[in-house]
Amino acid sequence: MNTISVTSLFGHYEVKFISDIKATIERIVQENPSHLLIDSKIMNMYGDMFGNANKFTSKKTIAVFERNKSLDTVQSYIRFLLRHHVKKNHMVIVVGGGLVQDIGSFTSHILLRGIRWIFIPTTLLSMADSCIGSKSGINVGKYKNQVGSFHPPHAIYIDPQFLQTLPRDMILDGNGEIIKHAIISGGKTYDYLTKHLSNIQTNTTAARDVIFQSLLVKKKIVEEDEFDKGIRRLLNYGHTFGHAIEGYTKNSVPHGIAVTMGMDMANYISVQRGLLPQKEYKRMSGLLHQNIPIAKFPIKNIDTYMDFLSHDKKVIGNEVHALLCRGIGHVESIPVKLDKKLKGDVKAYVIAYPEIRSRALKNYAIKYKIAS
Amino acid sequence: MNTISVTSLFGHYEVKFISDIKATIERIVQENPSHLLIDSKIMNMYGDMFGNANKFTSKKTIAVFERNKSLDTVQSYIRFLLRHHVKKNHMVIVVGGGLVQDIGSFTSHILLRGIRWIFIPTTLLSMADSCIGSKSGINVGKYKNQVGSFHPPHAIYIDPQFLQTLPRDMILDGNGEIIKHAIISGGKTYDYLTKHLSNIQTNTTAARDVIFQSLLVKKKIVEEDEFDKGIRRLLNYGHTFGHAIEGYTKNSVPHGIAVTMGMDMANYISVQRGLLPQKEYKRMSGLLHQNIPIAKFPIKNIDTYMDFLSHDKKVIGNEVHALLCRGIGHVESIPVKLDKKLKGDVKAYVIAYPEIRSRALKNYAIKYKIAS
Repeated sequence: MNTISVTSLFGHYEVKFISDIKATIERIVQENPSHLLIDSKIMNMYGDMFGNANKFTSKKTIAVFERNKSLDTVQSYIRFLLRHHVKKNHMVIVVGGGLVQDIGSFTSHILLRGIRWIFIPTTLLSMADSCIGSKSGINVGKYKNQVGSFHPPHAIYIDPQFLQTLPRDMILDGNGEIIKHAIISGGKTYDYLTKHLSNIQTNTTAARDVIFQSLLVKKKIVEEDEFDKGIRRLLNYGHTFGHAIEGYTKNSVPHGIAVTMGMDMANYISVQRGLLPQKEYKRMSGLLHQNIPIAKFPIKNIDTYMDFLSHDKKVIGNEVHALLCRGIGHVESIPVKLDKKLKGDVKAYVIAYPEIRSRALKNYAIKYKIAS
Repeated sequence: MNTISVTSLFGHYEVKFISDIKATIERIVQENPSHLLIDSKIMNMYGDMFGNANKFTSKKTIAVFERNKSLDTVQSYIRFLLRHHVKKNHMVIVVGGGLVQDIGSFTSHILLRGIRWIFIPTTLLSMADSCIGSKSGINVGKYKNQVGSFHPPHAIYIDPQFLQTLPRDMILDGNGEIIKHAIISGGKTYDYLTKHLSNIQTNTTAARDVIFQSLLVKKKIVEEDEFDKGIRRLLNYGHTFGHAIEGYTKNSVPHGIAVTMGMDMANYISVQRGLLPQKEYKRMSGLLHQNIPIAKFPIKNIDTYMDFLSHDKKVIGNEVHALLCRGIGHVESIPVKLDKKLKGDVKAYVIAYPEIRSRALKNYAIKYKIAS
């Protein structure tokens, strides 16, 4: 249970669970000229682990703001690396969450037509979800994630100790994707993940196991469809409706929480369309709403929301290929027309939200608490 | 002899020799929403073929200046395509030479994590060399080709009619890479290519055959080593010394001509190091100098030239992995120390250049003339 090996078109790579991060980095730096790209907050909190003892060829901190996930940031980082004489055989060590991963992965992909990088995820979302799958996404002006690449890291080192200092919102953020993996997978994985989710911050072993199981779900899917042409679309469950929430709220709702809301919306719409039994909907809703710290649904103008929906990457013609749900373990890509019916469903959900939420939190038999 | 199929990690793609370009484009545009990216000169000269009859989703002309091969140009083109609602299933049709290819290929690679593109090369160099092999290169400030990708086109359509309006310098430019393929390959291919090279502009069948043979040499090498980790380095023959000439002269010497000069330098140094017999050197020099329209060698300051050499991508530590020559058909990657000895060799070449050139052009039995 210490290693996950992922098969990619570009070669195998491994996720290793470790607890001696300082020694691991020292070893990497000894073996390769290495450039450090690190979340500025992590550098402040864990500086002695990364900053002092090691001899990096270059060090760059990055402030985690959505506006920094731009081609301009990538270009300025590339100029920085070129000034520091980066070569094809060098390594970029990327430390942080998804945003730093995106910049590190994409930069490593296009610089010198591809150099190696190592990822040390420090958020729950990046540990349990984004670290595998090769994808990066960079914003272009108002267009989110419209540029990107497939460039898996040389290796991933996960040390759950970083979770202990993670703010609650960012735990919920990661939970969103873990719950997504749980619902997509169903069965024992669903039971296991939802049962242990609450212990992540207090128990390193639980954290490791949950991350491990979550990554196994994703591994199976991305190995089958690395380039997002078929089954990988399942991973967009909750994302179509979630992205539109992120767009509408200008990213004030964190990604994983928007995805959690998106899953509840997708499920609600699945019920409206006779795909999902009410009982199964309520069971998931009880789980999902524990992970939504937002009492008031943030969408007021339905037309604006529909406009964000219609700009989703999964839109072809007048249809969005939404991930709907027929039950736990039964998520399915279904073309949904961007029509009055969908607008009606969205409106109905927005109106019903307070009731859905209160019922979900009160009446559902909560066997476990998320992020206690 | 009408199609070359190239195997790539990303799937097969085909080079098709055609003479009905207008109909070909109309067919593509009917099958896919298509965006045209085209050399502004080609648009001026052949506008009716590209501009009017077809219904492109968007059209963009690009002026062929080295400074336009930048990340800024790529970003502005990406914004343009996003404003024109580019989607994953769309096609970018790229018409022009290597520079337009670089921008089109790289943009298609990173936009939406990769969309399809079709290449219609209009220069000899792009027809006979750069159109296959997947590579793109983009400049970052003063750093040339330091960013790039491997993203083969969906298909390549070659129509040699474009050669008829190509200026002489650009014929020599393409000849440089064809001669490189001839020397790397040796044997019958060398004889065939060097014999027919002079007929390219006057005889469409000769042009087609020369381009075909030239691409076969490259195809064999890039199929074996798409990602430039081994044998593909052979294609850098002439490039190490040639790139430094381009750098030194701020690209006033066209690439293929700089490469031709670079091959002669590499051969001269190979002689100095006892690798290449004088007789074989002279034979190639006679061929190469017909393709160099520069009577005076453009390097004056040897130290500056050495500095450009030391910034070559193939430099590891204090050695440049130069492609030296043991004879026609025997090019080899050999680590060469960036030391006084190399500087001495370069200086000796620069001093000997007028004599080398005059001997090459006068005394060598010229069986064929290039670019008559």
